[in-house]
Amino acid sequence: MRAVSLDYAARRLDMRELPDPEPAGPSDVLLRVYEAGVCGTDRDLARFRFGYPPEGRSYLVLGHECLACVAAAGSAVRRVKPGDLVVAKVRRPCVPPCPSCARERADLCLTGRYTEHGIMGADGYFSDYALAGESELLVVPDAMADVAVLAEPLSVVEKAADLAVGLHEPGGRSAAVVGAGTIGLLSALVLQLRGIATTVCSIEPEDSARARLVRAAGLQYTTRPEGQADFVIEAAGSPDAARAALHMLAPLGVCVVLGAPHLPGEFPLMGLIVNNQKVAGSVNAGPAHWEMAVRDLGCFDRRILSRMIERRPFARYAESICGEPGERSKIVHVVAD
Amino acid sequence: MRAVSLDYAARRLDMRELPDPEPAGPSDVLLRVYEAGVCGTDRDLARFRFGYPPEGRSYLVLGHECLACVAAAGSAVRRVKPGDLVVAKVRRPCVPPCPSCARERADLCLTGRYTEHGIMGADGYFSDYALAGESELLVVPDAMADVAVLAEPLSVVEKAADLAVGLHEPGGRSAAVVGAGTIGLLSALVLQLRGIATTVCSIEPEDSARARLVRAAGLQYTTRPEGQADFVIEAAGSPDAARAALHMLAPLGVCVVLGAPHLPGEFPLMGLIVNNQKVAGSVNAGPAHWEMAVRDLGCFDRRILSRMIERRPFARYAESICGEPGERSKIVHVVAD
Repeated sequence: MRAVSLDYAARRLDMRELPDPEPAGPSDVLLRVYEAGVCGTDRDLARFRFGYPPEGRSYLVLGHECLACVAAAGSAVRRVKPGDLVVAKVRRPCVPPCPSCARERADLCLTGRYTEHGIMGADGYFSDYALAGESELLVVPDAMADVAVLAEPLSVVEKAADLAVGLHEPGGRSAAVVGAGTIGLLSALVLQLRGIATTVCSIEPEDSARARLVRAAGLQYTTRPEGQADFVIEAAGSPDAARAALHMLAPLGVCVVLGAPHLPGEFPLMGLIVNNQKVAGSVNAGPAHWEMAVRDLGCFDRRILSRMIERRPFARYAESICGEPGERSKIVHVVAD
Repeated sequence: MRAVSLDYAARRLDMRELPDPEPAGPSDVLLRVYEAGVCGTDRDLARFRFGYPPEGRSYLVLGHECLACVAAAGSAVRRVKPGDLVVAKVRRPCVPPCPSCARERADLCLTGRYTEHGIMGADGYFSDYALAGESELLVVPDAMADVAVLAEPLSVVEKAADLAVGLHEPGGRSAAVVGAGTIGLLSALVLQLRGIATTVCSIEPEDSARARLVRAAGLQYTTRPEGQADFVIEAAGSPDAARAALHMLAPLGVCVVLGAPHLPGEFPLMGLIVNNQKVAGSVNAGPAHWEMAVRDLGCFDRRILSRMIERRPFARYAESICGEPGERSKIVHVVAD
């Protein structure tokens, strides 16, 4: 089979031919991959900023966003059956599992010794076939096939939004999302679905495709972060975005940081103290937020979600992973039709 | 009456003679002040770093930590009666009250237009007599008279500990408190009471009075912040303490910042993200945490609390407010015996 992989010895991204994987245990599921999404994490992995291959190997199969079909299931598998359309989780429990991982909350692993499909120590889904444990899979309705590849980024956003709402003591009513990429727009859609008045703040011009898409979704868009919001979601991945996010936090506000590596300059803690504010980092998602993602994908305006996606053939993987992000926020490679 | 006040016109701390205050409304309570505590906020106020006098006046009566006796109560007062021993809250609602202030949660004021006794726009308690609304007072048992002046700092700590515990998703079991002053030691005592293994990290030598008091309370003490903790409470008020606090945060950890004005250098948000960590600022307390403070004062080892306090006569106010903090962490001025 074909597999887009990172070679940690040669420090190179390539497509290699590998034997089709074979289920090793009775709970293993063989997946026929239909689509693989690309995000900023893949771009950082291809720069060897983090990530590592499975033990005893020099390469890692990339891809942590996928839509697939169950091709074969081990004898103990009960949750899925051949022919099911599925999406697959990213993070795998530490071994032996800590209390969080034992509750299938590997996204809240207490030891830090988890692995992640396509990122750290476990092969991903950017290949014709892939293996996953049945507990890593969620069945999605066939009618959602055109947008289900968004389930992974949406699961991250569901967790972040849930966290933000849970942390706001009196119950916040306004939100600002910094960044208009996939995570930014999905964050805004999730907050909007919860009845929170949401503005997307980003650097793309007012007449850009992304800004137009934000407005088409019934959301406010601005290039000038101003005013205050009860919730601020940093979804741009840049230090400047983090600074803008903190500046917009209202008293008692909650800021969830999803991508910015650091805050430039000194962090004014006194503002947090005097205003009883909270800053939380969030990454990945557990079962509950994956389920919310699959449910909410069915609630959003399908035309908005479709306009986020640009589909490309498998062979153009290098352009997506090493090139600039496209005008549409989510690049998805078609692995099989 | 005598009143320790800050003159914002002359930019001077002094003791002035003022007419005894008179209750203006039916819910007003006249207090005979017994004791007034001094903390870092008073020292910052005396440097005119923040704070302001009541409207139309050039001076502010200092003091936001007190133990007092009800001298007279307005006709509508029901919660307290003359002769009751009381402690008094600091923050007063914004006018007209926002939804939080209307629920007596002025500590979570949504508008930022609150006032604070002895700090911002309202006279404090460092005087022979003082006025307070009945909703600002908590009755304390006479048997707690020797330590009840600690109720205000303890209320701040109760709120912070409650916040930390509530924010830790799987339920944390270990804590580090950075700072061994009043707020630091009270934080450690509150966490210890909740069954959390707590270490106090501070700069005082191992054989200092503060370090000995920490150990006498059955807590660990160290001058070298090491290892990781589920909860980290910054209670030293210094940027270096904030840095040490963040470095000790375990995955999923919660850091509550109580005093550090800023974090030196760049704040590594990526650590928060990858480890699903939270940083919260906290200040002041609402009714529930004041009640917890009065309750917990009765639970702690009275000898430990007594050893925190150094009592001084009224006349030595300037030495306490403008001088260096003493060896004992809490300086309390005896206003009346």
